[in-house]
Amino acid sequence: MSQNFRLFLQYDGTDFDGWQRQGNTDNTIQGKLEQVLGRLEGEAVEVCGAGRTDAGVHAEEQVANVHLKTEIAPGQLKDYLNRYLPESILVTDVQKAGERFHSRLNATGKIYTYRLDMADKCRVFQRKYTYTLGQRLDVEAMRRTAGYLLGTHDFRSFCANKHMKKSTVRTIDRIDISVRGTQIEIQIQGDGFLYNMVRILVGTLIEAGQGKRAPESIPGIIGARDRQAAGFTAPAKGVFLTKVLYSR
Amino acid sequence: MSQNFRLFLQYDGTDFDGWQRQGNTDNTIQGKLEQVLGRLEGEAVEVCGAGRTDAGVHAEEQVANVHLKTEIAPGQLKDYLNRYLPESILVTDVQKAGERFHSRLNATGKIYTYRLDMADKCRVFQRKYTYTLGQRLDVEAMRRTAGYLLGTHDFRSFCANKHMKKSTVRTIDRIDISVRGTQIEIQIQGDGFLYNMVRILVGTLIEAGQGKRAPESIPGIIGARDRQAAGFTAPAKGVFLTKVLYSR
Repeated sequence: MSQNFRLFLQYDGTDFDGWQRQGNTDNTIQGKLEQVLGRLEGEAVEVCGAGRTDAGVHAEEQVANVHLKTEIAPGQLKDYLNRYLPESILVTDVQKAGERFHSRLNATGKIYTYRLDMADKCRVFQRKYTYTLGQRLDVEAMRRTAGYLLGTHDFRSFCANKHMKKSTVRTIDRIDISVRGTQIEIQIQGDGFLYNMVRILVGTLIEAGQGKRAPESIPGIIGARDRQAAGFTAPAKGVFLTKVLYSR
Repeated sequence: MSQNFRLFLQYDGTDFDGWQRQGNTDNTIQGKLEQVLGRLEGEAVEVCGAGRTDAGVHAEEQVANVHLKTEIAPGQLKDYLNRYLPESILVTDVQKAGERFHSRLNATGKIYTYRLDMADKCRVFQRKYTYTLGQRLDVEAMRRTAGYLLGTHDFRSFCANKHMKKSTVRTIDRIDISVRGTQIEIQIQGDGFLYNMVRILVGTLIEAGQGKRAPESIPGIIGARDRQAAGFTAPAKGVFLTKVLYSR
């Protein structure tokens, strides 16, 4: 008999090679979790994450799940993980999950947040969590551009994986752009995101804010179904996986 | 002829051995500034800081001054420094100062902020800037205790330097303790602070919040003029030099 656990995680992606485990020289979030849980279980375990965040991308609330034979209460499991994980990974909650719960397949949506600063230099304490642009942006133009991205589209132009064989159709439900002083926060909610999609969406919005792209150019970019039609890939350090959504 | 410049600095103290220069194996804020400015000037320069922050202590706004023979505009000097300093040190402003301006001797006060979290673990992104206590504190008791610390006293009990020959009399003008969820922020304003004084004040306030000390015990602690009468030295990573005050 095994128990399926749902893990809520927060991490500073700065020093990791992303979420997804990588062979021997492993320095990934998934790898760290599997190492610690493997010692608890006495055999290899597989941790499944809702979002496969890139190298350098952070998580305010990632969700993962793992099946364990070890009998352990959720609170104990949380304490065990926090005792042995590096301090840049924090388990904020552990819950018992139904046998068939799958953190990625059951997710109905995700919210990502991108933080950038128009100043030359951002606050020292934010330097690992903010993309510093050193340039004013036309936020209204960015908002108009964002409007054209909402809805269900084939987002192949916003996918860094050239050999993507599966569907590249996704739905973006919401893009909020808030400004405080020189700081800009872009929050994007959608049903799912392609490889580098958040960073390419943000790069395209930034180029619109720089006046390099007109908001009305978006339908053409989407229609091109070509990565080179869209904007640059904004740096990973500004990206946060903020929340994974489930229908219940 | 030389020009005196006033520098406003922000730094993440995590990876430094404090403000004050230390011989050869130098990894201090003062040392880093003097290295960069020495290359500009073509000879050794001395940078004077308003507060000699400890190893691991951060600054939201430290003030320093330096006399330079090199003719350079304040804005250029700021850019030059930010180009060559490590990214954990940021020069936020440079101003021309009067010939006799001395960042430390002319300072009329300082504001320090201490950040701590009562939760078991703080947010991952705050882990280098927050002392995580893992214990509820009685904030009202801390506030009552703080009341007894206000005013002009001999703070020898709150000074880690046993061989302090100069006066240990200081004035604390204000101690504000604010709470947001499990996070506590303690802001202390005074005319000057002894070695480790902020950290010992905070350690004593924490012990009052734990019920280990009564607010009414403070006059006795001050009267003892003995470091061992006061509380523990709270960890450096929670301390921020927030502002240096000048009369004009």
